Amino acid sequence: MIETDISRVIIQEYCKRLSEHLENDVVIVGAGPAGLAAAYYLAKAGIKTTIIEKKLSIGGGIWGGAAGYNVVTFEDKDILDEIGVTTNKQGKLYTADAIEFSAALAYKAKQAGAEIFNLTEAEDIVLKDETVQGIVVNNSAVRSLGLHVDPFCICAKYTIDATGHPAELVGMLKKSKPELFPQQLQEYFMNVETSEAGCVEKTGEVFPGLFIAGMAVCDVYNLPRMGPIFGGMLKSGKKVAELINEKI
Amino acid sequence: MIETDISRVIIQEYCKRLSEHLENDVVIVGAGPAGLAAAYYLAKAGIKTTIIEKKLSIGGGIWGGAAGYNVVTFEDKDILDEIGVTTNKQGKLYTADAIEFSAALAYKAKQAGAEIFNLTEAEDIVLKDETVQGIVVNNSAVRSLGLHVDPFCICAKYTIDATGHPAELVGMLKKSKPELFPQQLQEYFMNVETSEAGCVEKTGEVFPGLFIAGMAVCDVYNLPRMGPIFGGMLKSGKKVAELINEKI
Amino acid sequence: MIETDISRVIIQEYCKRLSEHLENDVVIVGAGPAGLAAAYYLAKAGIKTTIIEKKLSIGGGIWGGAAGYNVVTFEDKDILDEIGVTTNKQGKLYTADAIEFSAALAYKAKQAGAEIFNLTEAEDIVLKDETVQGIVVNNSAVRSLGLHVDPFCICAKYTIDATGHPAELVGMLKKSKPELFPQQLQEYFMNVETSEAGCVEKTGEVFPGLFIAGMAVCDVYNLPRMGPIFGGMLKSGKKVAELINEKI
Amino acid sequence: MIETDISRVIIQEYCKRLSEHLENDVVIVGAGPAGLAAAYYLAKAGIKTTIIEKKLSIGGGIWGGAAGYNVVTFEDKDILDEIGVTTNKQGKLYTADAIEFSAALAYKAKQAGAEIFNLTEAEDIVLKDETVQGIVVNNSAVRSLGLHVDPFCICAKYTIDATGHPAELVGMLKKSKPELFPQQLQEYFMNVETSEAGCVEKTGEVFPGLFIAGMAVCDVYNLPRMGPIFGGMLKSGKKVAELINEKI
Amino acid sequence: MIETDISRVIIQEYCKRLSEHLENDVVIVGAGPAGLAAAYYLAKAGIKTTIIEKKLSIGGGIWGGAAGYNVVTFEDKDILDEIGVTTNKQGKLYTADAIEFSAALAYKAKQAGAEIFNLTEAEDIVLKDETVQGIVVNNSAVRSLGLHVDPFCICAKYTIDATGHPAELVGMLKKSKPELFPQQLQEYFMNVETSEAGCVEKTGEVFPGLFIAGMAVCDVYNLPRMGPIFGGMLKSGKKVAELINEKI
Amino acid sequence: MIETDISRVIIQEYCKRLSEHLENDVVIVGAGPAGLAAAYYLAKAGIKTTIIEKKLSIGGGIWGGAAGYNVVTFEDKDILDEIGVTTNKQGKLYTADAIEFSAALAYKAKQAGAEIFNLTEAEDIVLKDETVQGIVVNNSAVRSLGLHVDPFCICAKYTIDATGHPAELVGMLKKSKPELFPQQLQEYFMNVETSEAGCVEKTGEVFPGLFIAGMAVCDVYNLPRMGPIFGGMLKSGKKVAELINEKI
Amino acid sequence: MIETDISRVIIQEYCKRLSEHLENDVVIVGAGPAGLAAAYYLAKAGIKTTIIEKKLSIGGGIWGGAAGYNVVTFEDKDILDEIGVTTNKQGKLYTADAIEFSAALAYKAKQAGAEIFNLTEAEDIVLKDETVQGIVVNNSAVRSLGLHVDPFCICAKYTIDATGHPAELVGMLKKSKPELFPQQLQEYFMNVETSEAGCVEKTGEVFPGLFIAGMAVCDVYNLPRMGPIFGGMLKSGKKVAELINEKI
Amino acid sequence: MIETDISRVIIQEYCKRLSEHLENDVVIVGAGPAGLAAAYYLAKAGIKTTIIEKKLSIGGGIWGGAAGYNVVTFEDKDILDEIGVTTNKQGKLYTADAIEFSAALAYKAKQAGAEIFNLTEAEDIVLKDETVQGIVVNNSAVRSLGLHVDPFCICAKYTIDATGHPAELVGMLKKSKPELFPQQLQEYFMNVETSEAGCVEKTGEVFPGLFIAGMAVCDVYNLPRMGPIFGGMLKSGKKVAELINEKI
Repeated sequence: MIETDISRVIIQEYCKRLSEHLENDVVIVGAGPAGLAAAYYLAKAGIKTTIIEKKLSIGGGIWGGAAGYNVVTFEDKDILDEIGVTTNKQGKLYTADAIEFSAALAYKAKQAGAEIFNLTEAEDIVLKDETVQGIVVNNSAVRSLGLHVDPFCICAKYTIDATGHPAELVGMLKKSKPELFPQQLQEYFMNVETSEAGCVEKTGEVFPGLFIAGMAVCDVYNLPRMGPIFGGMLKSGKKVAELINEKI
Repeated sequence: MIETDISRVIIQEYCKRLSEHLENDVVIVGAGPAGLAAAYYLAKAGIKTTIIEKKLSIGGGIWGGAAGYNVVTFEDKDILDEIGVTTNKQGKLYTADAIEFSAALAYKAKQAGAEIFNLTEAEDIVLKDETVQGIVVNNSAVRSLGLHVDPFCICAKYTIDATGHPAELVGMLKKSKPELFPQQLQEYFMNVETSEAGCVEKTGEVFPGLFIAGMAVCDVYNLPRMGPIFGGMLKSGKKVAELINEKI
Repeated sequence: MIETDISRVIIQEYCKRLSEHLENDVVIVGAGPAGLAAAYYLAKAGIKTTIIEKKLSIGGGIWGGAAGYNVVTFEDKDILDEIGVTTNKQGKLYTADAIEFSAALAYKAKQAGAEIFNLTEAEDIVLKDETVQGIVVNNSAVRSLGLHVDPFCICAKYTIDATGHPAELVGMLKKSKPELFPQQLQEYFMNVETSEAGCVEKTGEVFPGLFIAGMAVCDVYNLPRMGPIFGGMLKSGKKVAELINEKI
Repeated sequence: MIETDISRVIIQEYCKRLSEHLENDVVIVGAGPAGLAAAYYLAKAGIKTTIIEKKLSIGGGIWGGAAGYNVVTFEDKDILDEIGVTTNKQGKLYTADAIEFSAALAYKAKQAGAEIFNLTEAEDIVLKDETVQGIVVNNSAVRSLGLHVDPFCICAKYTIDATGHPAELVGMLKKSKPELFPQQLQEYFMNVETSEAGCVEKTGEVFPGLFIAGMAVCDVYNLPRMGPIFGGMLKSGKKVAELINEKI
Repeated sequence: MIETDISRVIIQEYCKRLSEHLENDVVIVGAGPAGLAAAYYLAKAGIKTTIIEKKLSIGGGIWGGAAGYNVVTFEDKDILDEIGVTTNKQGKLYTADAIEFSAALAYKAKQAGAEIFNLTEAEDIVLKDETVQGIVVNNSAVRSLGLHVDPFCICAKYTIDATGHPAELVGMLKKSKPELFPQQLQEYFMNVETSEAGCVEKTGEVFPGLFIAGMAVCDVYNLPRMGPIFGGMLKSGKKVAELINEKI
Repeated sequence: MIETDISRVIIQEYCKRLSEHLENDVVIVGAGPAGLAAAYYLAKAGIKTTIIEKKLSIGGGIWGGAAGYNVVTFEDKDILDEIGVTTNKQGKLYTADAIEFSAALAYKAKQAGAEIFNLTEAEDIVLKDETVQGIVVNNSAVRSLGLHVDPFCICAKYTIDATGHPAELVGMLKKSKPELFPQQLQEYFMNVETSEAGCVEKTGEVFPGLFIAGMAVCDVYNLPRMGPIFGGMLKSGKKVAELINEKI
Repeated sequence: MIETDISRVIIQEYCKRLSEHLENDVVIVGAGPAGLAAAYYLAKAGIKTTIIEKKLSIGGGIWGGAAGYNVVTFEDKDILDEIGVTTNKQGKLYTADAIEFSAALAYKAKQAGAEIFNLTEAEDIVLKDETVQGIVVNNSAVRSLGLHVDPFCICAKYTIDATGHPAELVGMLKKSKPELFPQQLQEYFMNVETSEAGCVEKTGEVFPGLFIAGMAVCDVYNLPRMGPIFGGMLKSGKKVAELINEKI
Repeated sequence: MIETDISRVIIQEYCKRLSEHLENDVVIVGAGPAGLAAAYYLAKAGIKTTIIEKKLSIGGGIWGGAAGYNVVTFEDKDILDEIGVTTNKQGKLYTADAIEFSAALAYKAKQAGAEIFNLTEAEDIVLKDETVQGIVVNNSAVRSLGLHVDPFCICAKYTIDATGHPAELVGMLKKSKPELFPQQLQEYFMNVETSEAGCVEKTGEVFPGLFIAGMAVCDVYNLPRMGPIFGGMLKSGKKVAELINEKI
């Protein structure tokens, strides 16, 4: 029956893709701008990359622009041109449509070969030989309902915490190793000039096997927050891809 | 200060786009597969088209594939090739990644020139001279909180109800004009063969100025539901675009 | 890595079992006493049988006995002896421990070869050629959160509505075909003597391909409710298994 | 069409007012009695002043009087006479109707030229050169729903924390600079005599660019709470206006 | 002690005002634009008038303008000039600040002598001799919590239903006397031209002792909705005041 | 150990009392003023009487007086004198403290010998030979949580529906026998004069074995509601006790 | 009209009682067993005593006995005999019906002359001259809804914290004066023998003007909890009454 | 009447079982895999054993396998063979059906003679002579609703904390005796190899009278978490049974 044919090809293709991506070169947690940009550049370089995202849709904080005015800004537009996003010049800033930007980024990352599993949530880290070797994940709907269900694992040579402000993976590490991150994980007061540059500069490895990118960098290093300007996010994602690419 | 520059360009560009799209050739309610496909074909034909979507992200029911297995199926792949979605052949079916499909559709609709306002919800219809002339909309966050706040209007020569199963606009019409739609607005039991064809065939105008496309068609005509097979949605979106194009 | 080995064998075994049970001889909705008893007798007879259950655990209304006093009663004990449940005689009634009864029933059904998918919810019926040919199911956690995600299908030659008081599958049928079930789907006032017998007697096929068993029978025929006495449930489950066995 | 004319003039006027008030002499957070009084006196003195208020209505804790008995009290009535509120003398106290008081204060602040944006919530501070230069704001409905959406900025030479008991802006400052405010931000036990005087006396600048007024003063200096007597609130608002006026 | 002095004058003044307003010439349910305008004109004419409002603040749907853009529109400005609201001319429309309009209306109604009890909710009608003689009210916080507590009564020669879209008092009457209002209580599709005029024209007495004003008129007569244009509300409030004034 | 001694005597005494009261002369549902008064007079006459109450505390709507002003009124005071409640004369009315009245009523009913099971909720009726022979009950905490747990039974020669406005038992009867109670179960508009008398007059048997008392009478006969005046409740409770006493 | 007569006598009597009890000899927070017993003995001694209780009903933790088995135990029965509660001897323990005990205690406290205001919640302490001089209270329904409304005051020479396990008033004192109560406010593990005696022994004044009684004593001194045995509660309430009586 | 006969035998049998199990050799908190395995081996050895479980069903985290894929894994299968669970060999791992495993474990524990009370929650420990002598329990539905109801006690010579990750009983002990457990009660990052062995090795007595088993061991000793592999749980349950058996 065609109904069960549809069901079967979906379940089997998903299962195959998931089984094939339990071990990866890189696993990225969070499909926001930094995570998607990192995935795009990693996959383009032929590196086996998986993103997990706890929400049903991807894009993180892009969709709403500022306070729901769905426009986003950039200080330059090289990466936007590369991924094919239309921009307008307004004074010294470039604007783009938030929806177009979000969709283009996801589309290009997928086309480059990155795998994305949505509705999937990191609940812990896999730590062996004092190295982060992947993440412990669960169905995010099951977790939201507080059901008592065990997780499974997605492993990787390198793990990127691209979870944004909460810096969730670093927070998990800190919970058992508070001495590693004595500071509060929080961003500092808004200051766009210093934040955009600092966020890219500090992008990198914070523990063997664990990299940070995007707003998680601001949380870990207490850098200023920046608001709806996304150039730093893209550059941070690109930089983390380059750093990992050099190590592989 | 750069922080207020960012705020200002965003607010002003949004306000300008919104003001310019208060009157349209076509307004589409719902940024799911049928609504996005319709917008893509309408905008490509040079018709001024606006989509409103009450959620923060677009894509409707695509993201989760079947039960969260994020893969979707199609019986043929012409439109997919046109919008650039990678497909796999599995028996008689084509599969695609749900995230890639959703992102590609939104990206191509935007690139073609369609305007999308997310976080915006239709709460009523504008009806004059017994013709639907647009919709009454509100901020969907404000509405979700039950705050008592008046709406505003987005008008159009033609309005498309692409809200999926609830067929929300038809439901509003039915509430004051129950004799027009004596049947329950609900889909019939699943039957993929008859549903895909029927949904496209019945796509069209149901009241002066009001068209239906996608799963809303199934609700209005009590056609079978179809599950995670999306060919009919794309064809219905394409057909409604063609029908309106002929009238303009 | 052993962590990914564990993940892989679980995902692949589940996927294999699910793929193999998309088409069945019998699919039962609801893993309460009637559904489990039916599954036990069907599987014991070599019939390919799958139960779906929306909760995380099985057993339905057994666990709490009466008002949380976790003891259940029976008028005779033949089936209990067969499945190995300890009973006490108290006057004309037999009592059993609710937890032991629930666990034994599930254990014996599984041992006999029935397949059970928990956290899986029927959201519709598959109807072709005016015959129920299976059910449309979804992840119940995804549904509880109201996420907009398409379902998949589990088909079968015969479908049993063992959903208890709501008689959910009959309710779905009634929604589109109200003339078939003009009565309210509800049980009548408590009366143990007439209810136990009536429930078994009326167990059977209510529409081509669709059988009812257990308390769903009381709802469809407006029979009295019965409270924490479970003999009728077991006999209804056994009877529906015999009726289907004769037809296969 | 008149419906879109209405929409357009509203959106454009709001957008214009908002764009014009992204940079101000003074931004006040909280439209309770102290914030409105400050705005009234600042605007009357020709200073460009914007209030943001997270609720839909303004007035803060005035509306309910004491425990819902909607009457408020004062020890003298000079400011009340100035803003035109009817008072009754009862022993040594003056009473006024809570609703009249709240409405009069807002009306007079607006007439004096202050701008108020309701449904707008401060989520952070803009800090540059170790000076508070404004606030980071968002749509409060979007924030209440926990949607992941970036904020925008409203800047000012001077910022007033008139958020009442939580002293929200000071709390944000304290989170990253705990050494500045080593005490708990909380009011002390009720004592009307000492509280009214102390609250006015301590009104002032607590960090370069950041002033406090109203109950926030009690929280920052651990002064006693005072209950439904509002003279101190008005005087604190008036005093902060005078202090800022001297500096501009 | 001054703390108990404050408590005592508040409790006693509230109790005195409430006791004195248990019997009135007119009781108005709902402190939105129509209710406040009616109260202003009634009180100005020396008629004893009480408004009850279930929310803590008054103003109804004014505060948010359209979708949170806090600006409201009018087709003429006579009443606005009378109550002292600043207006701007934009094409054929006048705009006003939503907050200023709301505050001014409440302030002027109070100054004219109307009494307002907020946090007070109508839960029923007093009907004697087939005449509405007042309302049955309760503390709205107690009601929101679903506590089982009896109400009290506020009586009047004439009662005005100014509850807006739900037309709550008419709905209560309809519940026990469905033959009086055979139609659904709901507004029709937006159409500003016909709505503003119709709403004023139909303002009046719908049952001995019960008048309707404002959007409740649209619900009772199925007139079109109108959105954030408030001229009709003010005129309807003024007209109902004149109609009652003639009868007293 | 004393801790288990305490546990044991409590569990055993409760179990003994519950077992002894599974069969009664009269079971009353609802421990509000009418139910408690009925129980007092029945028990005083030596009739075996059990009350079930779904809340943790008894007293129903007495505690809050009117809108939380915890005073109740009566037109005469004979029964109050009998149960020992202090009254004040105010004009033609007597007032009493709501808490004293509620406590006295429960105390006297218990002293007279009535049994009360709180946290126990009626979920259905036992109907045999077209006679109500008792009620189906459950733990109300288990029911509030929506747990799927079977009920048990408390039987009686006569059952009194003293559930107040919802008239819950009559509502259950009406659900399966709508022809018996064609009217809506709802009270009419407030009118104290006719309500107090009518409520007592109509107190009685509405179906073999089922009596109604208190506000449930108003719902069944669409009598006016009465508010915080409780003489009718006490008289209705006394009358139903007398009617049953005559039949036993 | 009788409806407004009823409303007026209730509002005026409540207002008079509340106004008269804004200043007291003793104010007790919490109408559980210790608070009610204290009030009974204080009022019997002619001391002006007011209890406030945040719930609608009084009785605190009595109603449910143990886990809903509504029976309570005592080691002796002198006080029970005095307040007229029926007891049964079971081994070395006395049992009583929880509902009868709760009702009798409230009834006797009221008859002795204590005033009780239910639905009233302490939100703070009045502290002057380093002495607790009363409490800051609010409508508990208003507080439960999180409405921003000021409180009022109820003053007294002596204040008793009878709030049970949270020891709410002591907790408020500790928040601003942590050095006074360095320990956690929590009870120790269950041990009936030592708890009953210790709770009575430690009953007394913990800060000038503030006494503790009942389970609050266990929290403040980290004494063992005791479960459903209530002799210690009654004796603690009696003792605190005697201590205060000596000081007045 | 048979309905009351059913009620009576259930209530009396439950009451008898509960009364008989207020004192035990061993009480186990938590009916997950470790608790059930411990109960099975203890009961098989003739030791009087009671399990309490706060949920309605037993099985803890077994039912959902990994992320809802209801399959569980083991490194060897000796205990599974003993309790009769079907296994499949997949590489070095054994898989079993989660539902079969959960049901078999409960069934075998009951058959061996263990008593289980579900819907029962430990809210504290009984501590005498610095020895844990049992637990303080309550109805978990009553607790979930936050009702203020006293608990009762279940005592035992030995108590096992098998509550899983929260290690609830150890947490209660730590709250009053923080010096005993200075570490955070939390598991370490996933590492299956070291976790399975360590969990069994550290199973044992942590305070006089209190044993820990299963995942609670990982929390107390900060061992790695392990995911859906259950061999360690079974061995830990078996070991704790042996340790206690030696002491009795």
